[in-house]
Amino acid sequence: DMAVRHYTLDFNLSTAVDPASTVSGLLSIFHEQELTETIHDTDGHGYLATFVGKNGRFVVLRVHSQGLVTVDLQFYEDDDIAQLDNVRAYTGLLFLPTLKLIRLPALLRGAKVDRYWPTADGRLIEYDIDKVVYEEDSEYQNIKILHSQQYGNILVLDGDVNLAESDSAYTQAITGSGKENYAGKEVLILGGGDGGILAELVKQKPKMITMKVIDGCKKYMRKTCGDILDNLKGDCYQVIQDCVPLLKKYVQEGRTFDYVINDLTAIPISTSPEEDSTWEFLRLILDLSIKVLHPSGKYFTQGNSANLTEALNLFEERLGRLSCPVDFRKEVVCVPSYLEQWVFYTAWKK
Amino acid sequence: DMAVRHYTLDFNLSTAVDPASTVSGLLSIFHEQELTETIHDTDGHGYLATFVGKNGRFVVLRVHSQGLVTVDLQFYEDDDIAQLDNVRAYTGLLFLPTLKLIRLPALLRGAKVDRYWPTADGRLIEYDIDKVVYEEDSEYQNIKILHSQQYGNILVLDGDVNLAESDSAYTQAITGSGKENYAGKEVLILGGGDGGILAELVKQKPKMITMKVIDGCKKYMRKTCGDILDNLKGDCYQVIQDCVPLLKKYVQEGRTFDYVINDLTAIPISTSPEEDSTWEFLRLILDLSIKVLHPSGKYFTQGNSANLTEALNLFEERLGRLSCPVDFRKEVVCVPSYLEQWVFYTAWKK
Repeated sequence: DMAVRHYTLDFNLSTAVDPASTVSGLLSIFHEQELTETIHDTDGHGYLATFVGKNGRFVVLRVHSQGLVTVDLQFYEDDDIAQLDNVRAYTGLLFLPTLKLIRLPALLRGAKVDRYWPTADGRLIEYDIDKVVYEEDSEYQNIKILHSQQYGNILVLDGDVNLAESDSAYTQAITGSGKENYAGKEVLILGGGDGGILAELVKQKPKMITMKVIDGCKKYMRKTCGDILDNLKGDCYQVIQDCVPLLKKYVQEGRTFDYVINDLTAIPISTSPEEDSTWEFLRLILDLSIKVLHPSGKYFTQGNSANLTEALNLFEERLGRLSCPVDFRKEVVCVPSYLEQWVFYTAWKK
Repeated sequence: DMAVRHYTLDFNLSTAVDPASTVSGLLSIFHEQELTETIHDTDGHGYLATFVGKNGRFVVLRVHSQGLVTVDLQFYEDDDIAQLDNVRAYTGLLFLPTLKLIRLPALLRGAKVDRYWPTADGRLIEYDIDKVVYEEDSEYQNIKILHSQQYGNILVLDGDVNLAESDSAYTQAITGSGKENYAGKEVLILGGGDGGILAELVKQKPKMITMKVIDGCKKYMRKTCGDILDNLKGDCYQVIQDCVPLLKKYVQEGRTFDYVINDLTAIPISTSPEEDSTWEFLRLILDLSIKVLHPSGKYFTQGNSANLTEALNLFEERLGRLSCPVDFRKEVVCVPSYLEQWVFYTAWKK
């Protein structure tokens, strides 16, 4: 594995410190390491030097105007120096702490298992992923199941963290936060491919549940779905693969449900609903769902990151312009593996 | 603000792709940008070129052995190119996606407000921090209160995320997960400087609470502490500044408490308990706490990240070697702003 550990060390030179002496201090450290130095002409944008050493070691030292100093260190993982304690010695960190150093955990680049799965609101997040346990390109999406020490197996669809075995809070929120009684009720689950909602609701013996499943979850998301996905048809449930034709058929037949739970996809981040096909799909599903919702029924769906207020507003506007008028409320929930606060919606017919 | 946006673009050249043509494709893109190129001798460790352009733009292109390509792009924040859509155009990302590109959110380096607060288990985490609302160096620690859009104000002690206004789950867990009845009970809170535990427990009218507070929380952690910190003495509580002398006095007097809640500090990450003064402090507090615990009382404390199994094991060993034998149980809890699963302990005398 030729992964690269990329350390960043940043600090601001206070006015009390002589920039020249700090730089020459750093330079002398790098020179001791037998690095080959190149000084670059930045056309007035500060001091920039690069250093190449043995074992592919590479260092960038920049002193920006206004006193910001940034240091980049790239080491191959199999290089002894790549371990943190050695990096400390290598960079003379004993003298740097007085400078309020910002030293981030190393970026691991080119590793076999990717640990970085940014949040929906675009923040850089490192997970404790140690293994890819399943990967498949289905007709609709790329499906990965990754193992995390603290969250258990995590289902990742098209690069988005979808659900981990730790995330009963998600299932709880999208089924009405424990305030509903599903016994004997007609329930329609759209999506829910991990089986978590199905496994939870069958305990309450509803009349029927139809849904769509993802291969791989049956085996690798066992803490989420239990044994419910082992059979595609049970006493009180039935699993169906494609939900749009089914929804259209139900609309035609005039069939209604007490609960429609849309677990298909988060509302799109894109703020151009007129151009985005995901928005179109979401609108189609929403319209059909409300049509098959019993007048006293409830529609549950996830929204998106609490920080994506524009996308959430667009969705709420859409809820206000349905063929049948609805009211709605929303709830902000902490789903453990998401590493961001998540919004869930409940809608019902006025 | 001369902050630097640092983008990383990494991909592996598949065997189907000609490395030379990919590199020359990238090179031609960078040449179009009027960048000055330097090719470095890596002594057999792949291709390494650096590029310096106008406005302090800086690019590193490495083609490592085994086909890993890493690209670093550093732009000043006030440079038009630093926005993501422009970076896409700049790097010809239209042709790169076929290569399973890993493009992380940019690292923001040297910004006035630091968004990176690594987890206890050492992972790189970007928070949505937009403002420093309070900062103070007290006698004991550096205290910061930072504002996050989704978590509210966050108390950061010596660089560790301590508690956010979103984190009632923390207060809930460290007071026994709602299973205790505090009415009329003698309660001792150690630490709890944010006032969250105090604000929660006074609702149940316990007989006395003593603790230590952090200036700044009263004003900036209002959603956590309510108005409870406005007065250092109330009907059923009293606030004390230094808990160790007080604990020693209670031990001498033979005074006991129904509940001791230790909210002082997480158990140390260091695995050298013999050398670390934090471990010594923790041991002192633990010993004194158990001494003032009523025979039928309960001791609550936080542990640390669920991933830090070595540190947790050391703490559990310590629990097994107290002057008075105790039993304990632990619980893993999701505290929203921590972005890692957190362990809490309950201990009681055998």
